[in-house]
Amino acid sequence: MFIQPRLYRGMRDILPEVMLPREELLQKVRETFRRWGFAPLATPAIEFKEILLGKYGAEAERLFYKLEHDKENLALRYDLTVPLARASAMYPELPTPFKRYQIQEVWRAERAQPRQGRFREFLQCDADTIGTDSLAADAEIIALSVYILREIGFTKAITKLNHRQLLRGMMESAGFPSEAEMDVCRIIDKLDKIGEEGVRKELNEAGFATVNVDSLFEVILARDNDENLLSMVEKKWGGNPRIAKGIKDLREIISLTASFGTPKSNLKIDLALSRGLDYYTGTIFESVSPEQPHIGSLTGGGRYDDLIGLFSKRDIPAVGITIGLDRILSALIDAGKIEGAKSPSRVLVTIFDENFIGDSIELARKLRDSGVSADIYLEPRKLAQQFAYADKQGIPYVAILGENELKKGVVALKEMASGGQREVSFGELLEIVKAGKAL
Amino acid sequence: MFIQPRLYRGMRDILPEVMLPREELLQKVRETFRRWGFAPLATPAIEFKEILLGKYGAEAERLFYKLEHDKENLALRYDLTVPLARASAMYPELPTPFKRYQIQEVWRAERAQPRQGRFREFLQCDADTIGTDSLAADAEIIALSVYILREIGFTKAITKLNHRQLLRGMMESAGFPSEAEMDVCRIIDKLDKIGEEGVRKELNEAGFATVNVDSLFEVILARDNDENLLSMVEKKWGGNPRIAKGIKDLREIISLTASFGTPKSNLKIDLALSRGLDYYTGTIFESVSPEQPHIGSLTGGGRYDDLIGLFSKRDIPAVGITIGLDRILSALIDAGKIEGAKSPSRVLVTIFDENFIGDSIELARKLRDSGVSADIYLEPRKLAQQFAYADKQGIPYVAILGENELKKGVVALKEMASGGQREVSFGELLEIVKAGKAL
Repeated sequence: MFIQPRLYRGMRDILPEVMLPREELLQKVRETFRRWGFAPLATPAIEFKEILLGKYGAEAERLFYKLEHDKENLALRYDLTVPLARASAMYPELPTPFKRYQIQEVWRAERAQPRQGRFREFLQCDADTIGTDSLAADAEIIALSVYILREIGFTKAITKLNHRQLLRGMMESAGFPSEAEMDVCRIIDKLDKIGEEGVRKELNEAGFATVNVDSLFEVILARDNDENLLSMVEKKWGGNPRIAKGIKDLREIISLTASFGTPKSNLKIDLALSRGLDYYTGTIFESVSPEQPHIGSLTGGGRYDDLIGLFSKRDIPAVGITIGLDRILSALIDAGKIEGAKSPSRVLVTIFDENFIGDSIELARKLRDSGVSADIYLEPRKLAQQFAYADKQGIPYVAILGENELKKGVVALKEMASGGQREVSFGELLEIVKAGKAL
Repeated sequence: MFIQPRLYRGMRDILPEVMLPREELLQKVRETFRRWGFAPLATPAIEFKEILLGKYGAEAERLFYKLEHDKENLALRYDLTVPLARASAMYPELPTPFKRYQIQEVWRAERAQPRQGRFREFLQCDADTIGTDSLAADAEIIALSVYILREIGFTKAITKLNHRQLLRGMMESAGFPSEAEMDVCRIIDKLDKIGEEGVRKELNEAGFATVNVDSLFEVILARDNDENLLSMVEKKWGGNPRIAKGIKDLREIISLTASFGTPKSNLKIDLALSRGLDYYTGTIFESVSPEQPHIGSLTGGGRYDDLIGLFSKRDIPAVGITIGLDRILSALIDAGKIEGAKSPSRVLVTIFDENFIGDSIELARKLRDSGVSADIYLEPRKLAQQFAYADKQGIPYVAILGENELKKGVVALKEMASGGQREVSFGELLEIVKAGKAL
């Protein structure tokens, strides 16, 4: 019997070369979440379809992977926000505020573009604070995301900051009809992708007057430092209560992020930032790496005070962020910041002589007990074949133990990169392998 | 709009109290796999149904969660062995032998028994070595699983060891028809659950003669040390080539596990161990905790030389183990070996006075930068409410910073368990919180 091995489109296997740095990245992120007092949550992959539909509406339904079982209508998790909302409503024992992180896969039946890194199964990594409308929560979430980006090497990433109330107030002041605000948001959200001309064209096609677009663009496309930008809007349209509220919030949040340790250089008000999603109600933010603009946004989030309450009988304010870990991993690999090893091992212990297989195994055991990742070949094949195995996987050292070495109480150690080889004691072996010394 | 929050049966949310130790357990296991030179692999949740069917056959199909999309017949991953087999056939760049670990969820539409810890979504944690029939691979997998169990606290766990060839040879010698061997295996596998009498009854009902059952049971239920057991079988039925091969393999594997560092006290030959699955061809093993027999087996695995080749045009020998991490976690919680904290935080920084919110945030920041998990309350509520928040989540210390403390350059620190409170410097604060000292 033979079955052709293949993958459903949009799905991928993650081989050791990518899994090794991915697991390390995830562990760093988890440790940071915990150090900031956020607690982990996991929810099941399979949810009732009606639960998922509640938020996204019928339009999103075609992007769900639907299942039927036990005559129930089910679907695979589409994001981590709805499961959080459902869970917060189900467990009264959860604290208020509830600061949670969640790192799990989601599934979307979108057009797959594997070459652009767009898959139908991908990891989401969310941190949310729910149950408080304190701006300190917005500031903490923003500061946390900047901190994580810095920790994993994006010290120059810029988190752009805006406020939905401010944005809607500016549209109102520029003469847009209030019922069209979300449509305008969705078009403006494409600025990075299609540029100012493209956005103007789409707004025009959607029936908005050029005079209004000019008036709005004069303000939101202005470039200046944060305080000058806010003062400019305040001077021009400060009488609008939504604008006044947005500016007040942004000033307070910026001041609080400084207390949380966010360097000023990583944060920038961008009055044109709009985020596509309907449900944001206050602060919105998004991070990009100026060195790798083609990667797109690394993180994104905002305040959404009307969403979580869907599953409980009262409003529950919330603010949260999604960190695009798979995209970040691609950016790191792309920038050559990640080693390409295919094995976790620092050293391969060969089996040189079948009669001394026990001694080789014991050497591997001693290395492992000393905290060194060590592989052992398992078969008494030709040394050349065992070397090729180490070479293929990027294992930097190979240890050889024959009758001769055993008699002398030494190990023959070979460095794969240089080909250099010499006899060493176990102590020297540890030192060389741990430090990555040349031979 | 209100949607009743609920979960599909057999699914569960994992709240912080269980997620916190679960993530630590997983990290410990991942680090050990890596130190032993095993490399991580991830495969997608959604596979073509025909791929999954190849192994389990039509009977298992009703346990699949099936999806239809793009007119393709799809199903959710049912275990991690078939995806490994498919992936090994698809990527010629993988090394031979390939030592891989994989920790991912699987889905089975079985009868859910949430109270017995049986869910329809559960985590599998597998380590397999494929591409070699060397008995050193069997020994390494067994030694690795014993090592992991010891590392996470099961120092007395017993890994029972047997061999399918030996078992089948014994059935043959006891007079069972060879085509019935797998049926007998499946019934004998129930020994722990239904006892000797129950197994005898089932074998009888299945039409096997009492004389054959007596003959087999006299041997496989004998209790003695490993070498005496093997000698006993050898003396009685040593002429059977399958028995001779099984005994030779077991002797060699036991000797090799000693080289890998496995204490003799953790390994025990059990001639009645049979494992229910059809596909094992050689060594089989299973671990139990003698202190918690009701938990069932903690790990299980064996050699399966005829399975992986399904997706390639040649046979690929393999040996592997599944570690039941969720079951192990239940056993640890059950034994009181895991703390019940609901938050990762060691200390909660309160907001005592709205005017000094920035100072409280900076204190939290300094704690986090010093490696201490610290939460901050975010709202200037009554202190009693902030204390209740810490208490509910098991956060051991609370730090208070008011005008008075700020002037004196100190922090008021309260220990939640004792209620003790005093003024401390930041240095003292760190020391107390890190060491868990009383106040």
